Amino acid sequence: MTPFKLTEELVVEIEQLIEQSNDTELNSMLSTVHYADVAEIINELDKDKATYLIKLLDSDKTSDVLTELDEDVREAILSSLSTKEIAGELEELDTDDAADIIGELPKDQIQDVISKIEDREHAKDIVDLLRYADDSAGGLMAKELVKVNENWNVLTCVKEMRTQAENVTRVHSIYVVDDQDKLKGRLSLKDLLTTSTKTHIKDVFIKNVDSVNVNEDPEEVARIMSKYDLEAIPVVDEIGRLVGRITIDDIVDVIKEEAERDYQMAAGISQDVEADDSIWDLTKARLPWLILGLFGGAGAALIMGGFEEMFREYTVLFLFTPLIAAMAGNVGVQSSAIIVQGLANDDIRGSISSRLIKEMLLALLNGFILSCLLLIFTWIWKGDFLTSLAISISLIAVIVVAGFIGTFVPLFLDKRGIDPAIATGPFITTSNDIFGILIYFSIAKLILGI
Amino acid sequence: MTPFKLTEELVVEIEQLIEQSNDTELNSMLSTVHYADVAEIINELDKDKATYLIKLLDSDKTSDVLTELDEDVREAILSSLSTKEIAGELEELDTDDAADIIGELPKDQIQDVISKIEDREHAKDIVDLLRYADDSAGGLMAKELVKVNENWNVLTCVKEMRTQAENVTRVHSIYVVDDQDKLKGRLSLKDLLTTSTKTHIKDVFIKNVDSVNVNEDPEEVARIMSKYDLEAIPVVDEIGRLVGRITIDDIVDVIKEEAERDYQMAAGISQDVEADDSIWDLTKARLPWLILGLFGGAGAALIMGGFEEMFREYTVLFLFTPLIAAMAGNVGVQSSAIIVQGLANDDIRGSISSRLIKEMLLALLNGFILSCLLLIFTWIWKGDFLTSLAISISLIAVIVVAGFIGTFVPLFLDKRGIDPAIATGPFITTSNDIFGILIYFSIAKLILGI
Repeated sequence: MTPFKLTEELVVEIEQLIEQSNDTELNSMLSTVHYADVAEIINELDKDKATYLIKLLDSDKTSDVLTELDEDVREAILSSLSTKEIAGELEELDTDDAADIIGELPKDQIQDVISKIEDREHAKDIVDLLRYADDSAGGLMAKELVKVNENWNVLTCVKEMRTQAENVTRVHSIYVVDDQDKLKGRLSLKDLLTTSTKTHIKDVFIKNVDSVNVNEDPEEVARIMSKYDLEAIPVVDEIGRLVGRITIDDIVDVIKEEAERDYQMAAGISQDVEADDSIWDLTKARLPWLILGLFGGAGAALIMGGFEEMFREYTVLFLFTPLIAAMAGNVGVQSSAIIVQGLANDDIRGSISSRLIKEMLLALLNGFILSCLLLIFTWIWKGDFLTSLAISISLIAVIVVAGFIGTFVPLFLDKRGIDPAIATGPFITTSNDIFGILIYFSIAKLILGI
Repeated sequence: MTPFKLTEELVVEIEQLIEQSNDTELNSMLSTVHYADVAEIINELDKDKATYLIKLLDSDKTSDVLTELDEDVREAILSSLSTKEIAGELEELDTDDAADIIGELPKDQIQDVISKIEDREHAKDIVDLLRYADDSAGGLMAKELVKVNENWNVLTCVKEMRTQAENVTRVHSIYVVDDQDKLKGRLSLKDLLTTSTKTHIKDVFIKNVDSVNVNEDPEEVARIMSKYDLEAIPVVDEIGRLVGRITIDDIVDVIKEEAERDYQMAAGISQDVEADDSIWDLTKARLPWLILGLFGGAGAALIMGGFEEMFREYTVLFLFTPLIAAMAGNVGVQSSAIIVQGLANDDIRGSISSRLIKEMLLALLNGFILSCLLLIFTWIWKGDFLTSLAISISLIAVIVVAGFIGTFVPLFLDKRGIDPAIATGPFITTSNDIFGILIYFSIAKLILGI
């Protein structure tokens, strides 16, 4: 394949063609470009040019392009399209993508758009999907699937399937339901083709089928599908009726978003922002964590103020406060990251106390090595063995406590049902800064007998 | 579905049954358990019990179980199996999984195991795959696929496909090659079934097919497949011959591993470790970053030592060094995380300088708000307006520089072809600590006219 590469030159060329209204050239240029790439181009255009392109290109392609656009670009384009045009685009889409787009429209426009969708069955399915929360299996699933009744025979089944399959881009599985539409199992294509046409489905289908409840958390669906290597999973409602199916490509998006959110949280960014967002959006996502850090720093200053009488004689102690704070922060972040990741992968077992003991042994080992290095450095620099020793011993204590906090907090949050990912990053660094400095000065004071 | 949940009770029960050699009960208990769940159970057992179970269960299932085990558990089990037994397990696996397992065996055992695989075609495919580096598309692909020659007619094609499909778990696509085995396109099942049997494939196949080169980076393959929503992609060698195919379930693993690696790197953990690894492994992954932090702290101490003459009169300046270091670190991590994520998603465009200007405006805004808060706090606490103002103005400067470094370093590393993810975490916090403290004292000194 010749990989598509978005360049400034390409964007400028397209902009010029749009200004010249050179539709023939635009159409021939973009006809061979994948819709995901067309979306990348349109993301770079201003609203009017973007709308021009969407109106120009085949609605077969533009509907898919719409699903791939950045949210703000899509919003701008949709606001320039008539409800009829929007309905036309939705007609081409799978129900899950159509419902996602409708969900972004202004409330008063939704009903209007839905009423203009010509395929009433499609409209009904979309309306059904609008009922489900975004962060549930229902909000992720599509209505397009192939299902057969267990009481049919193979011949009826094949006939029915042919009609159903027309609406389904890729048939992952044939699901078997009973008269109440309850999911009973699945059917292998091979069995269907090799069995006599009069056999009842009941007698040939596979009764063992994985499914998820419509209220299931998308991250749990992702965990199940990736653990069991499933390419699609049926979704059932509270009483076991088959209501939709989720495919692996939607799950890939869930996994990526989850990873991005955890990463951002660890870096102290509280909302889903991108580099291209406005300064205001970025500030809203970043400032709260910085203010937390500011409070932490103020707390550390107050604590150090309490040890002010040691200033004159033991100045060197104060020179190492940034080091102490940095080590407490780093150890805390390391410990919490390992726990958070273990919890996400569901491979943390055993009791909290055994976990804490292990982390503390680890911290002791690391702390001992680091303290030896620091002892040598301080002794050579300042020539005062006792003070150097006091600083180094305090460092071990700080590292052990930092490891303890870093391990305990995410485990504790997880037990309380709170996402432990908030425990990595500024939250843990800030509290470890404060505790670290308090412990450091207290122990140093004790050892130096001040 | 009744979701499987690994409990201590279950593990204990299985252990008891193994001790009693109660094979019937074990077999009936585990026959309905998915292989991925069996692997979770075996991960909890000691080596002898684990080997016992592997030998007991059906090799149909155990081969899949082996692919899902933790690497150290698998290694222990394989060392207790004979080469013939290992060959038997590999016989059941797809070529990519088999090659991955063989790659973990001791070098002198590999040839022996391969020679005992009965299906010689399978053995040949596995040997082919061993040639490719783990971190390439070749190392990820499997040999199992359905391909047809463009010169065949539909009838030959259907006949050939039937034989080929026996070895392929799920047919994602039918690939079309020429006499030199070069990938020419793909064939839709629908076209195949609706065309007269004498038609040549040449006349019906779709010429547009995405593919990746065998040397392509797995992360790039993941990007392509998830961008274009592909469930499988063919892999071609340097001269365009079809050599394998990669499926989406392998890509899900690549995406998860990539996210975990970035997350760990941001937390200052340099190797791929898990919470259950040994204290020694965890130390090796964590200590280097802590030593880096120690050097940074020592550097900060040296810098502060240079301002020692300010101690007596301006003690308050020193009380805020942990705050300054924390803010510099937090801002740096936030800025770098946004850039690293933008680079990973390929949505950072425009020049470096415009990026830096934006980040600096953002830092100015955040810095101004934070400095006002700090000014009020310090003024109330210490009652000295000029010193409070000096501290606050220094904080703005520190935040702007921290934002600059956090933005510039990952962009710079990326331009040099180095993974920018190393720039988040300890690397950026450490350098920002040092710069932050240097800037803070320098500016405060200037303002206070010392």
